[in-house]
Amino acid sequence: MKVHPRCTYCLLSRVHMEAELSTDDTGLIHETVMGGIEVLNRIYTPGMPAAALSTPMHRRAYEILKDNDPYIEKKELSTIVAEKFLPAIRSHVFDGNGDDIATFKRAVLAAVIGNYFDYGVMGLEVPIDIFEETFREHFKRGLDIDDTDRMLDKLSNVVYLADNCGEILIDTLVFEMIKKMGGKITLVVRGAPILNDVTMEEILQSGIEAKVDRVLTTGSNAIGICFDEAPSELKEALENASLIISKGMANYETLSEENYRPIAYLLKVKCDPVGEDIGALKGCSVARLLE
Amino acid sequence: MKVHPRCTYCLLSRVHMEAELSTDDTGLIHETVMGGIEVLNRIYTPGMPAAALSTPMHRRAYEILKDNDPYIEKKELSTIVAEKFLPAIRSHVFDGNGDDIATFKRAVLAAVIGNYFDYGVMGLEVPIDIFEETFREHFKRGLDIDDTDRMLDKLSNVVYLADNCGEILIDTLVFEMIKKMGGKITLVVRGAPILNDVTMEEILQSGIEAKVDRVLTTGSNAIGICFDEAPSELKEALENASLIISKGMANYETLSEENYRPIAYLLKVKCDPVGEDIGALKGCSVARLLE
Repeated sequence: MKVHPRCTYCLLSRVHMEAELSTDDTGLIHETVMGGIEVLNRIYTPGMPAAALSTPMHRRAYEILKDNDPYIEKKELSTIVAEKFLPAIRSHVFDGNGDDIATFKRAVLAAVIGNYFDYGVMGLEVPIDIFEETFREHFKRGLDIDDTDRMLDKLSNVVYLADNCGEILIDTLVFEMIKKMGGKITLVVRGAPILNDVTMEEILQSGIEAKVDRVLTTGSNAIGICFDEAPSELKEALENASLIISKGMANYETLSEENYRPIAYLLKVKCDPVGEDIGALKGCSVARLLE
Repeated sequence: MKVHPRCTYCLLSRVHMEAELSTDDTGLIHETVMGGIEVLNRIYTPGMPAAALSTPMHRRAYEILKDNDPYIEKKELSTIVAEKFLPAIRSHVFDGNGDDIATFKRAVLAAVIGNYFDYGVMGLEVPIDIFEETFREHFKRGLDIDDTDRMLDKLSNVVYLADNCGEILIDTLVFEMIKKMGGKITLVVRGAPILNDVTMEEILQSGIEAKVDRVLTTGSNAIGICFDEAPSELKEALENASLIISKGMANYETLSEENYRPIAYLLKVKCDPVGEDIGALKGCSVARLLE
């Protein structure tokens, strides 16, 4: 996905937010915002891939803040909230029609709604205290773009690109169904902390590695996947996958610049530029397969 | 008022918005945003007055767009909407307790709510189709900061700094009461188009000059008043006023850097930085007098 003019100020707002998450020192917050502006001024070019702007902006912010994980408390909070709601979400997925296909589709829907576990996308956040209500409402509404039927015959060797902390616990319901239906799963998480994205550390803390066949990382703290920094085993896994399942906007922004197929984008549309690119309005639940 | 880190991306969003108001040419929109980033990078300094950043950013945008009034259609729309609702607003103000003091206070409240006639402050806009409902609700709620009592003995020679188109028609209800109570009014409008602020052109179109004693301008298209560009007669008027009434955030941002007294700030708080500075939450109706 190419950068949109709106990305410039959304990214700058996010840099400011992560500075405020990291420190109370107003001088350092100002300095971090100035660092973001400096990067924007130096590298923003119309038509560039969005992540070629966002990755350097966040890296510069982390560097100025001398903080390699400003979202750490938010991430822990997301995990606690997801753990709290997981039994209820689980029963939404498993207590309906017992058919594997129907259950898989409900698990995918739940995982897409879980993509609301996010912080800092300008103007769109679901406060934790209304998450359960929001979940119920969106579950009832269903997927706005639903290509799940076409995913069913491609589940033998899935590469699953994770997005946020908290959300990952809901993703495990999809893992369960893929395994039950005979598939293997390679889970891919960030190589180092970036935003509230899940890393190997959170996977090991939650014991999620036991629910998949192997866990790889993106090799760096880039937004989504930076292919110049990605390990060769990840590229091989993507090439050999029966299906790539890509969660969230950051993975979409970077994978949509590549030609890996078949790929299923599962995400909540949380901003207009991504919405315009993928063809859905803000707030939509998307499970779009490209073959 | 000093700049806040949030002002940086709010201003950039506004530059983008005015580019979209001005043109459909995506290349030119990108160029305008890049111009805004360039100005941000060049002059943004923590602790600088907010308008010392916003004025050059908007001027650069207008220059790149080769458009000296991107808001022209929005301004016309505001005027049409205000004309439509003015009779209803008028009856809210004049149909209650007939006492001049009570009526003046209701007129001030109406004028403060009229400050919602604004476009482009990030995340806060009142859509025109719900303006009447919003007005009623805020009128019922009243002023959150109410120093109107202390203004009553200072109305002999008022300098009234106008803000937006549309809003100015509601301001005329305050003019009427000041005149009825024996006061004189010097109305001050922008010296050239900037945002959706009222200029001499709109004053003459609406015949508002007949409702006041004289009309001056700020001498330029600066945000609020840039005192380096202001005519000497405006500075004299401000020095000799029995009361300065300053409408809106832009006038607040610039007048709060000066020492003119007594000054009454009438505004709707439309962003957190102004709210923190003036001591009221976003959405509050403020009539704060400094003596």
